[in-house]
Amino acid sequence: MSEVTNSPKLQKAIEFIEENELSFRQQLIEFLKIPSVSSDSTRLEAMKEAANWTQSWLDEAGLKTEILPTEGHPVVYGEREGKAGAKTILIYGHYDVQPAVMADGWYQQPFEPTIKNDVVVARGATDDKGQALALLCGLKAAIHAHLANDVNVKVIIEGEEEIGSPNLVPFIREHRDRLSADVVVISDSSQLGPDMPAITYGLRGLQCLEVVLKGPKQDLHSGSYGGAVVNPANVLTRIINACQGPFGKIAIPHFYDKVKELSDEERREINDLPFEDSEFQKEVGAPAISGEEGYSTLERKWTRPTFDVNGLVSGHTGEGVKTVLPSEARAKFSMRLVPDQDPEEIRQLTEEFILSILPEGVTAEFIPEHGARPVVTSRETEEFAASLRAIEKGFGKKPVLIREGGSIPVVNTFKEELGIDSLLIGLGLPDDGAHGPNEKFSLIDFKRGMITFSALLEELSQE
Amino acid sequence: MSEVTNSPKLQKAIEFIEENELSFRQQLIEFLKIPSVSSDSTRLEAMKEAANWTQSWLDEAGLKTEILPTEGHPVVYGEREGKAGAKTILIYGHYDVQPAVMADGWYQQPFEPTIKNDVVVARGATDDKGQALALLCGLKAAIHAHLANDVNVKVIIEGEEEIGSPNLVPFIREHRDRLSADVVVISDSSQLGPDMPAITYGLRGLQCLEVVLKGPKQDLHSGSYGGAVVNPANVLTRIINACQGPFGKIAIPHFYDKVKELSDEERREINDLPFEDSEFQKEVGAPAISGEEGYSTLERKWTRPTFDVNGLVSGHTGEGVKTVLPSEARAKFSMRLVPDQDPEEIRQLTEEFILSILPEGVTAEFIPEHGARPVVTSRETEEFAASLRAIEKGFGKKPVLIREGGSIPVVNTFKEELGIDSLLIGLGLPDDGAHGPNEKFSLIDFKRGMITFSALLEELSQE
Repeated sequence: MSEVTNSPKLQKAIEFIEENELSFRQQLIEFLKIPSVSSDSTRLEAMKEAANWTQSWLDEAGLKTEILPTEGHPVVYGEREGKAGAKTILIYGHYDVQPAVMADGWYQQPFEPTIKNDVVVARGATDDKGQALALLCGLKAAIHAHLANDVNVKVIIEGEEEIGSPNLVPFIREHRDRLSADVVVISDSSQLGPDMPAITYGLRGLQCLEVVLKGPKQDLHSGSYGGAVVNPANVLTRIINACQGPFGKIAIPHFYDKVKELSDEERREINDLPFEDSEFQKEVGAPAISGEEGYSTLERKWTRPTFDVNGLVSGHTGEGVKTVLPSEARAKFSMRLVPDQDPEEIRQLTEEFILSILPEGVTAEFIPEHGARPVVTSRETEEFAASLRAIEKGFGKKPVLIREGGSIPVVNTFKEELGIDSLLIGLGLPDDGAHGPNEKFSLIDFKRGMITFSALLEELSQE
Repeated sequence: MSEVTNSPKLQKAIEFIEENELSFRQQLIEFLKIPSVSSDSTRLEAMKEAANWTQSWLDEAGLKTEILPTEGHPVVYGEREGKAGAKTILIYGHYDVQPAVMADGWYQQPFEPTIKNDVVVARGATDDKGQALALLCGLKAAIHAHLANDVNVKVIIEGEEEIGSPNLVPFIREHRDRLSADVVVISDSSQLGPDMPAITYGLRGLQCLEVVLKGPKQDLHSGSYGGAVVNPANVLTRIINACQGPFGKIAIPHFYDKVKELSDEERREINDLPFEDSEFQKEVGAPAISGEEGYSTLERKWTRPTFDVNGLVSGHTGEGVKTVLPSEARAKFSMRLVPDQDPEEIRQLTEEFILSILPEGVTAEFIPEHGARPVVTSRETEEFAASLRAIEKGFGKKPVLIREGGSIPVVNTFKEELGIDSLLIGLGLPDDGAHGPNEKFSLIDFKRGMITFSALLEELSQE
């Protein structure tokens, strides 16, 4: 149990949160109803609606707001000034979500949120509308309880996180002065498990790539032509297989050159965390779990690079048989990266390798997708210590220190462009199903997240 | 040029064909408009319509007809008795077609036939509505010219060829007596090239299979889970690749055990045929043509087994990025077989091999699809000789003897169940695009096919 006691001001913020809990839940439902899929060009209206909704919410909470355009979807900006000389906290979140269609296995319409047993189910529930709104509600409570007077608060909620934030770097460069801050707070990740609050100090990087192989100018009869014409779908399996090595390794030459091995101490820390392979297997529902030889499940998820096919498509994918030799075959894949791998270098190595093994008879085209550098943040800063105390107040439990397998490219962007570290306070759960069907978010954690952020603002006022 | 002269009766049949040419073309257009896709359960009405259309046509031509039910789509049957003791010729064709959607690359609606420069474009144009109707029009002309009195003619036009004729064997067994004949005539293949009429004495066999790999119970975030959970799409590329060997070989153990090598004489014959790799490459529109080392293009197409992926599907196949680790991955593939490979044995070898290399973490399910034995027919029969002369009359040119890469499983069925050889008189062209988009058929060859069949009936009367 927690050993910390709450100040009267924080107590007041918590009361405000409890009084407004139903209304905050209702606001989350409204936000989740907007199908703001940033990668879908038919969803432009919903993207605008989500940005406007966010701005209105911040207006109502008492921030000075603006919708700032980018080359793509706009960024919602808000700010509230505290005392002169106070610390500045920048909240980052995103109002865009991953695609979602019933055919992916949803039990309900992804944009018609439902609540059952204090859990909300909808696309964006945990990634990131629910988590971002928790911080904002915590801010609102802190304002109400006069906890936020000794800090400056800035908020950016962007609309392109799920497509790799292609316009965030130019945006941050353009608004460098306006965005200056002491620390960034991001809730777009997970606890270690239920009632295991955590702060995330490491993230994997990412390089996505799509390869399109083209052979004959149109689909051919596999009887009349098979054997005499190179089949792009056959070749696709060959080149994707060649990228994979045995025992969970990746076989692209020089792929591991810059991978730093963990220190013995960090390995020990990670493997001391309360984590059961059997529970994990139950959570993913696979017949067995497996990965790179010589590493534990948490090491594989958090600290080792991957090569994962995200999508394959070629030829006849519908009902029944169609004995064609396809004209074209496509694979989308994502490579998760760890320090000190560089996404751009990995992309080049991958493309060069595929081209080097491509047989005659097909051509390859690459569609480069977004990349993100891996990041490990310092655990020694004052802000990091403050966040540990705030999480303990919000969740009633000391947090554990974890890494995450996913990528939050903006963490790197803030570090590189503005020199600011991020505090990654994950409010979600590992099985929330971000990016999958039936994405969910606990409304208990929604509330805990609000209290945590109120507490953090108080902690940072005291520094 | 042809050295044969036509009899007055055949001349009369040719005149009838020429008088009715426009009307026959119109009938073909009507037939092609019916979207009789046998593999598509939403096309049941069209399947019925195509069967009825065929029956009416045969009625009108003077045959005694019946629609004979099967467990699936029915068979249209027709017969016409000649003199007692006359030979019996059984025409086989099919009224069903392959699936066709605009997205496959059609320049026009696949079931709205167009004619340009004496070529008709529509799904089913060459496979098999155009070719089957050519035989039937030739029969009609022969009846008109009293060429068909000294033969018995039976016709079966089935509706399940494109799904592997699953009910044809029980059908033939049930109607064994009624279907007894001296020879089967089938036009469901190709000439060697434009103005290179041919008779086909060999066909490859076929075994189709679909493999479904399942891993986690639902799609997972490739960041949060990647590396610690086996990815079914990665594994799919691995197992499909493992089935392929280097240099165009197939690596499934024992796959080649029963493959008979060609005689030197047959290899010489095949490689003496007028065939240009450069023309072939132009026809398929691939950046290069390639295949099993040590064999020519025609040998590869006609006489060597293949392993061709027909379709791949897994994970995110739409626009943009979705960094999922897919729950499931599917591959459909077809293996073309040559004497003396057995489809059922090949299916077993393939499944056993895949299971033997399947890593833990995924399960495999196989959906067995249709198989067909390879077949090489005798070139020494009276009927074979008659067909050579008839083709020369129809096309004004001696035919070449060829094999075909595709499978016409019924050829085997007729041989095994009824003991009858088939004459495969291909009226199509290699680039007609059967099974692909913009399928076409030359209306010049449509007419030549009619004359050929009238002539064949006369030839067989004279035996």
